[in-house]
Amino acid sequence: MDYEAFFLSGLQSLRAEGRYRVFADLERHAGAFPKASRHSPNGIHDVTVWCSNDYLGMGQHPAVLAAMHEAIDSYGAGAGGTRNISGNCHTHVLLERELADLHGKEAALLFTSGFVSNWAGLGTLAARLPNCVVFSDAGNHASMIDGIRQSRCIKRVFAHNNPRDLDRQLSEVAPDVPKLVAFESVYSMDGDIAPIDEICAVAEAHGAMTYLDEVHAVGLYGRRGGGVSEATGQAHRLTVIEGTLGKAYGVVGGYIAASRALCDYVRSFASGFIFTTALPPAVAAGAMASIRHLKESEVERLRQRDRVARVRQRLDAAGLPHLDNPSHIIPVMVGDATLCKQISDRLLDDFDIYVQPINYPTVPRGTERLRITPSPFHSNEDIEHLVSALSEIWADIGLERVAA
Amino acid sequence: MDYEAFFLSGLQSLRAEGRYRVFADLERHAGAFPKASRHSPNGIHDVTVWCSNDYLGMGQHPAVLAAMHEAIDSYGAGAGGTRNISGNCHTHVLLERELADLHGKEAALLFTSGFVSNWAGLGTLAARLPNCVVFSDAGNHASMIDGIRQSRCIKRVFAHNNPRDLDRQLSEVAPDVPKLVAFESVYSMDGDIAPIDEICAVAEAHGAMTYLDEVHAVGLYGRRGGGVSEATGQAHRLTVIEGTLGKAYGVVGGYIAASRALCDYVRSFASGFIFTTALPPAVAAGAMASIRHLKESEVERLRQRDRVARVRQRLDAAGLPHLDNPSHIIPVMVGDATLCKQISDRLLDDFDIYVQPINYPTVPRGTERLRITPSPFHSNEDIEHLVSALSEIWADIGLERVAA
Repeated sequence: MDYEAFFLSGLQSLRAEGRYRVFADLERHAGAFPKASRHSPNGIHDVTVWCSNDYLGMGQHPAVLAAMHEAIDSYGAGAGGTRNISGNCHTHVLLERELADLHGKEAALLFTSGFVSNWAGLGTLAARLPNCVVFSDAGNHASMIDGIRQSRCIKRVFAHNNPRDLDRQLSEVAPDVPKLVAFESVYSMDGDIAPIDEICAVAEAHGAMTYLDEVHAVGLYGRRGGGVSEATGQAHRLTVIEGTLGKAYGVVGGYIAASRALCDYVRSFASGFIFTTALPPAVAAGAMASIRHLKESEVERLRQRDRVARVRQRLDAAGLPHLDNPSHIIPVMVGDATLCKQISDRLLDDFDIYVQPINYPTVPRGTERLRITPSPFHSNEDIEHLVSALSEIWADIGLERVAA
Repeated sequence: MDYEAFFLSGLQSLRAEGRYRVFADLERHAGAFPKASRHSPNGIHDVTVWCSNDYLGMGQHPAVLAAMHEAIDSYGAGAGGTRNISGNCHTHVLLERELADLHGKEAALLFTSGFVSNWAGLGTLAARLPNCVVFSDAGNHASMIDGIRQSRCIKRVFAHNNPRDLDRQLSEVAPDVPKLVAFESVYSMDGDIAPIDEICAVAEAHGAMTYLDEVHAVGLYGRRGGGVSEATGQAHRLTVIEGTLGKAYGVVGGYIAASRALCDYVRSFASGFIFTTALPPAVAAGAMASIRHLKESEVERLRQRDRVARVRQRLDAAGLPHLDNPSHIIPVMVGDATLCKQISDRLLDDFDIYVQPINYPTVPRGTERLRITPSPFHSNEDIEHLVSALSEIWADIGLERVAA
């Protein structure tokens, strides 16, 4: 077989469908978020980033950077091993306590990323609970889907954010079979929010465990940043809360928070936890500083909400179509991969605005979009510039507007 | 089902088998490797770490730490998104060029860990090459095994480091079927090294791709640290070389190096690459400084080899049994999980020496061991202290010695 030809032809198909991914080559500037320098064949230009998942700009927070500097000076660069073999730093231990406290759980367990925490955390539970059936929301993230696939358990997909369908499907499985309901609080691409209380009620009625992915919510919702489960007073009902240190907390890494026995069990059996180098102590220290700050401070959350509301209002005034939702995520709908890429390219080239086009497989075909994530650091001028640029492009291409 | 009882009973079984993992709670001290402070219920004590995978102590190298400090000041804490959505930092781009150059390949692709690079890199190739058969060395790491499992391709396991068995098995699959041979250069637990040239010759004869995991070799072998494939002049024959930034390079992260088309293909289709937050720019910058340093400097490698030889010689003189191998890894064989833990505990409690016991499933049952990894920073006094401590424990427990 000609392997090179196979790879080239696969890439050619992506190009033909308009969904070949070109990465913007960026340098963010600490202290100047959301501005960044973009390296392109024509040189370096300043751009405004409108699609970062560093939702609150904590990636430039002085307390976070100071904690990282200090940890590097004290402990060095990496952890030096797996958690089990010489890589268990005291900072990991402290961070896990901080995370357990954040969610009001007995324990927490760190992973190298949110992806790995879902893949290994959910995957290990699903694989080892005998004959476990996982009930997975239709909108769940790739990392959960991959974890379920890896486990080879029986999977049942329930209709997105639909407790009635979940109830119906749970009823079809015998009461003594182990059951795990996996879902997210804020769905990243539509920005909609799960009815956590109803889903918990259904799961409890059927004796099912619950596993909630809060990666787009931790730091952002709840009085201490504990996510939607904190904001709605439901945290105690969830068996597992999974989160990330790489979005609102501005660093990198993932975790689960749950009972001491559950975390210890996953710690002891998850291949993706055991056989991997631990996060650098500086990453753990930065994340800890970020979590602690957002446990106390509401400033960033309030300012972000204000910015989100303003972008929505200005988009509405310009008749630019966006999905309504109760979260901080603003999906401006385009519905075509090539067009979506074209708008994004024009924003970048003509207006120095960076919003990555979101295409299949990240979203279903026909729902291609520009996903806008306002941060506390976007100014009124930034917002006017974004909306007028979009408006101009909308006019040039002749795209439909909606009534305000 | 009583989930808590299930988890507790699983943990109880581990304890009964003597293989419940207790993590040493450590603080390494940059500038003072291999010394670390160990937090225990009795307070904090200084220990000498003898089991780190920061093989060359690059985790405390001033150039690495300076690069990390600088990147934090310039770019902030995290990358702020996936590589595709606002997380592609210029430092990632430069690091990938550095890695491609290291292995003499057209391109390289970064992942969040070595585990993920194997799981997603190998897994994606195996899943997408139509009807691909993966020939996997019997000693392969969990991350490769998990990637193959995730892909659901057909897997054939060949006898460890045995090109003849590989040849036999390749012959049994039709010539036009895509084939991928996956193996490691240095096997982490036995420290033995693959006959890369012979395996490549067999793979080439059957038109199979080759995928070589060099995580325990990059930085350590070859004139520029390109691994065993560089040291033996075989790098050009391998389709994919996979490596880590978390062991000899002292930071964290993983990668593959291969043709431009292959890397671009994996970049475009690997779920574990696409849907995960990129490594922090400071991690990429630290790794880049480490790779550059070890491309030029032989000092660390030569000193490490000297230390390894000396430990072996002193173990031999004391009649302490260790697996002979051509690498930097010294497995002191115990052969029993409980005993192995007991020796490790005594080393820690009575001698302030930290060597983690290695038990099933990391190694097969009955081959439990203490895995010793001398670094350039272990002094002659450290070595004498280690060997005399082991010797005293060997005498106390009445373990067998071997003739020098």
